[in-house]
Amino acid sequence: MTVNDTNKLRYGGENMSRRDVSKIIGGAILGSAMAGGESASAQQSNTNNPVAPSYSKLTVAMLAFPNMTPLDLVAPHMAFAGLMNTDIHIVWKEPGIIKGEPQLSVLADTSFADCPKDIDVLFVPGGLDGVWELLNDNEVLDFISDRASRAKFITSVCTGALILGSAGLLQGYKATTYWAFKDLLPKFGAIPVNERVVIDRNRITGGGITAGLDFGLEIIRRLRSDDFAKVAQLAIEYDPHPPFHSGSPETAEPQTLAIARQMIAPQLSAATTAVNIAQKRMTTK
Amino acid sequence: MTVNDTNKLRYGGENMSRRDVSKIIGGAILGSAMAGGESASAQQSNTNNPVAPSYSKLTVAMLAFPNMTPLDLVAPHMAFAGLMNTDIHIVWKEPGIIKGEPQLSVLADTSFADCPKDIDVLFVPGGLDGVWELLNDNEVLDFISDRASRAKFITSVCTGALILGSAGLLQGYKATTYWAFKDLLPKFGAIPVNERVVIDRNRITGGGITAGLDFGLEIIRRLRSDDFAKVAQLAIEYDPHPPFHSGSPETAEPQTLAIARQMIAPQLSAATTAVNIAQKRMTTK
Repeated sequence: MTVNDTNKLRYGGENMSRRDVSKIIGGAILGSAMAGGESASAQQSNTNNPVAPSYSKLTVAMLAFPNMTPLDLVAPHMAFAGLMNTDIHIVWKEPGIIKGEPQLSVLADTSFADCPKDIDVLFVPGGLDGVWELLNDNEVLDFISDRASRAKFITSVCTGALILGSAGLLQGYKATTYWAFKDLLPKFGAIPVNERVVIDRNRITGGGITAGLDFGLEIIRRLRSDDFAKVAQLAIEYDPHPPFHSGSPETAEPQTLAIARQMIAPQLSAATTAVNIAQKRMTTK
Repeated sequence: MTVNDTNKLRYGGENMSRRDVSKIIGGAILGSAMAGGESASAQQSNTNNPVAPSYSKLTVAMLAFPNMTPLDLVAPHMAFAGLMNTDIHIVWKEPGIIKGEPQLSVLADTSFADCPKDIDVLFVPGGLDGVWELLNDNEVLDFISDRASRAKFITSVCTGALILGSAGLLQGYKATTYWAFKDLLPKFGAIPVNERVVIDRNRITGGGITAGLDFGLEIIRRLRSDDFAKVAQLAIEYDPHPPFHSGSPETAEPQTLAIARQMIAPQLSAATTAVNIAQKRMTTK
């Protein structure tokens, strides 16, 4: 047996050098978008290594839209890319540059028309004005309803849940959204739950903005495994040390909460108007 | 006094309707990039409201580069935008679409040549291959050195610290970086510290990837105030609930750490090679 042979590991019947395996596992968990190519050759079962490339390919469609909150999209994207062997589409009406709010632009690489019909995960990020606008945008709601009808998981972070709700996808489901807008969920027949990530059958909704990280790891647990998610958590060094206990209305100081509520009031008003219009549309349909 | 008058609040001598104030505060903390315009008119002192727009304008330059980790940039961007009254530039050699790793593209809106000469904050995100490549890219290192020479704060998240190091900016400074690459810091004369965010004089470095959130709030504390940062933390709902205690080498299970180390080994090797070349360049200069 040569040194080269010794370095070979048997992966579900295929020989592959340790270096190749490391590259595949490391690259993917650390976020390489390794759709097809190397990963495809590694879709073999393996019981020795919990993060071995032994999983079938997953197709993920992530909605991007004008004035979305970039972090709502980018944190879950890191998790989806870390699932390994994924085909991730950033979708909008047409491909192109999407200006976020706060202003940071990302690229939508797939049009609604070109997005695969059958997807494993549908994901919708949130925002403020950008979301209220979509709550009554038929082209968007039709696209979401169609892909959701066959998706294994229907998911959101932040106010993306309101878009799912307006597409009629949260009727009778427990769900969460950004803290300031949680009371709007029942207008879509959803049951608001005070948790960071809420899982009800195949609906997975995360709280506001930064909840995308916890959401992402819960997705990895379910689509891969706990052991896989533990490595992913270490890979993204998710060892949070927030400076204050100010991240939720329940833990924030009264003055902090009062200022935040004052800040958000005009947005809550705009959201309520859009949700009411959507609710009327849904009940008269 | 009319209803309209009653709705006016005195902000440092300027009249502004309550609605405008809410919009400015809310929009900015929640991340609106409100450079100039409305914010500029609100740069007045105010002692009643800890998040009032009473601060001078801040200019921030955030490096973006091919194969950077998108989340390294986007999480701190949310914080910088939340500083209010900021002028944020996403800078690269020339403006255009920057493909990240994992693959998600963001837009660099400012060239090195067009980036303001005097900035308040210089920020460098991290990555893997993309970073090793920059460690010996003179055009990038010259740009960073120049802006750093006048910046109030010189900052990074993840392996961005190695780029700062290679530009000679961490010599004699305490710093941190992604856990797997921490041992490389002394090659640039930096003193590695095992903390989520390390602050030494005007150098602020964050740990790997997700540390960008903690880093961002520490920046807000220093550039604005603790009260301001508390509202910002609530605004981004930063109330982390990671599913495991697996986010650092110290807390991860031995098997998790072993797999992660195996995954990262080829990258550590590539990084070490690039750092050694940089070190030689620096000592012979």
